[in-house]
Amino acid sequence: MFYPGREHSLLNYGVKLSDIGESQAIERLRVALRQLALPSDWVGIGDDAAVCQTEPGLAVLTTVDMLVEEVHFKRSTIAPGDLGWKALAVNVSDIFGMGGVPRWCVVALALPGELKVSWLEEFYRGLAQAALAYDTRIVGGDTVGTPGPIVVSLSVIGQAQKPRLRSEACPGDLLVATGPHGLARAGHWALEHPLAAVSHAMAELAMRSQARPAPPGYPATLAALPRLALLDDSDGLGRSMTLLAEASGVAVVLQTNRLKIHPAVAAIAHAAGSDPLDWVLWGGEDYGLVGATPDLPSATGFRVIGKVEMGAGAWLEDSTGRHPLTNHAFRHF
Amino acid sequence: MFYPGREHSLLNYGVKLSDIGESQAIERLRVALRQLALPSDWVGIGDDAAVCQTEPGLAVLTTVDMLVEEVHFKRSTIAPGDLGWKALAVNVSDIFGMGGVPRWCVVALALPGELKVSWLEEFYRGLAQAALAYDTRIVGGDTVGTPGPIVVSLSVIGQAQKPRLRSEACPGDLLVATGPHGLARAGHWALEHPLAAVSHAMAELAMRSQARPAPPGYPATLAALPRLALLDDSDGLGRSMTLLAEASGVAVVLQTNRLKIHPAVAAIAHAAGSDPLDWVLWGGEDYGLVGATPDLPSATGFRVIGKVEMGAGAWLEDSTGRHPLTNHAFRHF
Repeated sequence: MFYPGREHSLLNYGVKLSDIGESQAIERLRVALRQLALPSDWVGIGDDAAVCQTEPGLAVLTTVDMLVEEVHFKRSTIAPGDLGWKALAVNVSDIFGMGGVPRWCVVALALPGELKVSWLEEFYRGLAQAALAYDTRIVGGDTVGTPGPIVVSLSVIGQAQKPRLRSEACPGDLLVATGPHGLARAGHWALEHPLAAVSHAMAELAMRSQARPAPPGYPATLAALPRLALLDDSDGLGRSMTLLAEASGVAVVLQTNRLKIHPAVAAIAHAAGSDPLDWVLWGGEDYGLVGATPDLPSATGFRVIGKVEMGAGAWLEDSTGRHPLTNHAFRHF
Repeated sequence: MFYPGREHSLLNYGVKLSDIGESQAIERLRVALRQLALPSDWVGIGDDAAVCQTEPGLAVLTTVDMLVEEVHFKRSTIAPGDLGWKALAVNVSDIFGMGGVPRWCVVALALPGELKVSWLEEFYRGLAQAALAYDTRIVGGDTVGTPGPIVVSLSVIGQAQKPRLRSEACPGDLLVATGPHGLARAGHWALEHPLAAVSHAMAELAMRSQARPAPPGYPATLAALPRLALLDDSDGLGRSMTLLAEASGVAVVLQTNRLKIHPAVAAIAHAAGSDPLDWVLWGGEDYGLVGATPDLPSATGFRVIGKVEMGAGAWLEDSTGRHPLTNHAFRHF
């Protein structure tokens, strides 16, 4: 309803969302929230999950992730059970990326009336399988009709004794990460090329990692570390390193000689005629963890893959020297 | 992706969501969750919000509500600021309906690219105004593109020392409620009939209650009550009474002589040629609270409007006797 006298932004009159993009849209939310300061020990928009301290020494983490049909997935190429699994797994990955443990989740679905009930049942089954795998209780939901595409919105609530932020990296730290990197990208290629000359086992492994990503969890052995910068690796190692560098105000250096490329990634990239390093850096959807810490304990599932230095940006260091890590800068490999 | 051998429900093959409706869709979620029992002191799907006990004596409440353009609102008839306000207010109302206090919220938006930036800014401004009014911090968001209608999904997280469930009513209890009832429905009519013979002040009041619903909050004076059944009154008093009766396994009796009809509801219903009681019972969107308790303290904002008895269902008691409270049963008034 439009009351007379309602304030209206003249500056942006006529400008459309497609002109400004999604990150600028989130920026508008920040502006609207200027007056609503968070308590000093809370963390709002900008990390993998929000941090709200309800008790001293125990933080509640909250994530939200929305998936839209035709934008984030196509009904014709993802099984509903895989979508249900993935919707939870990507949120759980965000909780792990904060050093937390997922506890419960709510799921909201907008569904077209012509959708088959069997689709919904399979979706829920995949969701429940992920909930079981990640010990996350599904406590609530909202299911509504829509004249448009399927929309899936999940929020996972977790807890952390010591939330790990992406802004904690310091010069001198080790750059650490779980693997494998690029495997989901390899799985995507294998799916689209079922007749490629790739071993069945490797193709299966890669496709499974793409269809049912399995975030590795936050290792308890890291809990005692006095300082650890951490984030989840959802958009590829290159993107994660850039986010880490920006949030912490440091330079992050990946050393290629320390990087272990998964055999399936190497083999499938070879069959595809692609550079495996390109998949490692920019493939995305691997949902591992990337971090920085002065000292890495053993048996964490993390490997040292580089270092943190004074400066800015993400860098790649190989036998030929040091190169800025920007997307598609590595076609020469 | 469809792997060979993936299980598929044969029973429902070909059945569409439009054939089963939304409540049956939620039922499918319950079925999928059979294996995932909640801890005994948690409450899942079925009340205004989920209850998760993280510490002894302190429950975390979680709500989720999804609004779809053309289903729940039309861009042409709701101001974006009002939609932003409403999206938070309806979730906050659910938290109050559990006897809780809202603490923080996350918001996910699917937005078409042709949407004006000014629309989003106004939406966020209304959301922030509600957040300020209800002392609820907006800690996270996800903003994604869509080829379809606008979708708004909010989750509010709150806390309660003693969560109040709708299943707690017992025979002998007083039926209690905050008011006013039917005011949002009256506002809806006034909006559509700007030239009707209704006082400007009353029309304004009713339209404001429709555009910017203001859930009254859970009164601290109720916290000490040993037993209180409670739910939020989002779909009209008649619907709330039916939900209370079903959840508690009792008969709920509304006594018309105790019901106080707001003057604006009476006046606007008169102008509309409608029965004000019909709006009170079935108008909806009032976002007050309805409850049952053995004893009502003073100064709670609640009034006694009836009683709880052995039996089942929702009933209306007037000078002519007792009538089952079903929608459109009161055309004779």
